[in-house]
Amino acid sequence: MKILETCLYVDDLDKATEFYTSVLGFSLYSREENRHVFLAGEDGMLLLFNPAITANEVDGMVPRHGAVGAGHVCFQIEPGEEETYEQHLLNHNVEIEKKVHFGPHLSIYFRDPAGNSLEFATRKLWGKALND
Amino acid sequence: MKILETCLYVDDLDKATEFYTSVLGFSLYSREENRHVFLAGEDGMLLLFNPAITANEVDGMVPRHGAVGAGHVCFQIEPGEEETYEQHLLNHNVEIEKKVHFGPHLSIYFRDPAGNSLEFATRKLWGKALND
Repeated sequence: MKILETCLYVDDLDKATEFYTSVLGFSLYSREENRHVFLAGEDGMLLLFNPAITANEVDGMVPRHGAVGAGHVCFQIEPGEEETYEQHLLNHNVEIEKKVHFGPHLSIYFRDPAGNSLEFATRKLWGKALND
Repeated sequence: MKILETCLYVDDLDKATEFYTSVLGFSLYSREENRHVFLAGEDGMLLLFNPAITANEVDGMVPRHGAVGAGHVCFQIEPGEEETYEQHLLNHNVEIEKKVHFGPHLSIYFRDPAGNSLEFATRKLWGKALND
């Protein structure tokens, strides 16, 4: 299957929106007050929800969901762009939490304002699973 | 940005692996005991983690993450395939929790064995954000 929507849960939609649009380049698609922000990426949507609301909805339009604790999403960069993205994070005062080499592939880890664990990596990381 | 890895948290990796491979057609890429299962989809990875382990790792190889509560992922189907996928779920004894029409677009909601909220929808749902 192809994933159309990936979700993260955040406690502050304002901070998250600012971060994902200005640092990561997502486009704001829509927002519903303090419930959610929907962001458009390249070939897929990133949906940010406030779990204090979505996990407790009664008779909502869609089934209830909402998680607490750090989630994880990895964003695809191209081979050779690692240093550029590392500098990009530093330019935005985003702390690089860790850099990990998986064989020849470098993953760069950082956090969003809500504490979710984010990663930059190339699809080469996944070998034949995604590159045949 | 393009999303390379989408994550969900599950309490039972065996049940989740069976569900995501047999019902949703993901390919098993790798598994680490009771910590995680990595699945390959179409153009991206779906990573399933046991948060009881990943949220509590000390000096792990990668930064700590792990959430509790229902997450949400939407899988892309093509226009006209809605009935086929609905029947597919029924054939696998997966309960359809809700069907929601967003304008002319039908979303089909169901759950994985861990209680995560899953959805089938077409990318037309997102209009020009993904279809220009």
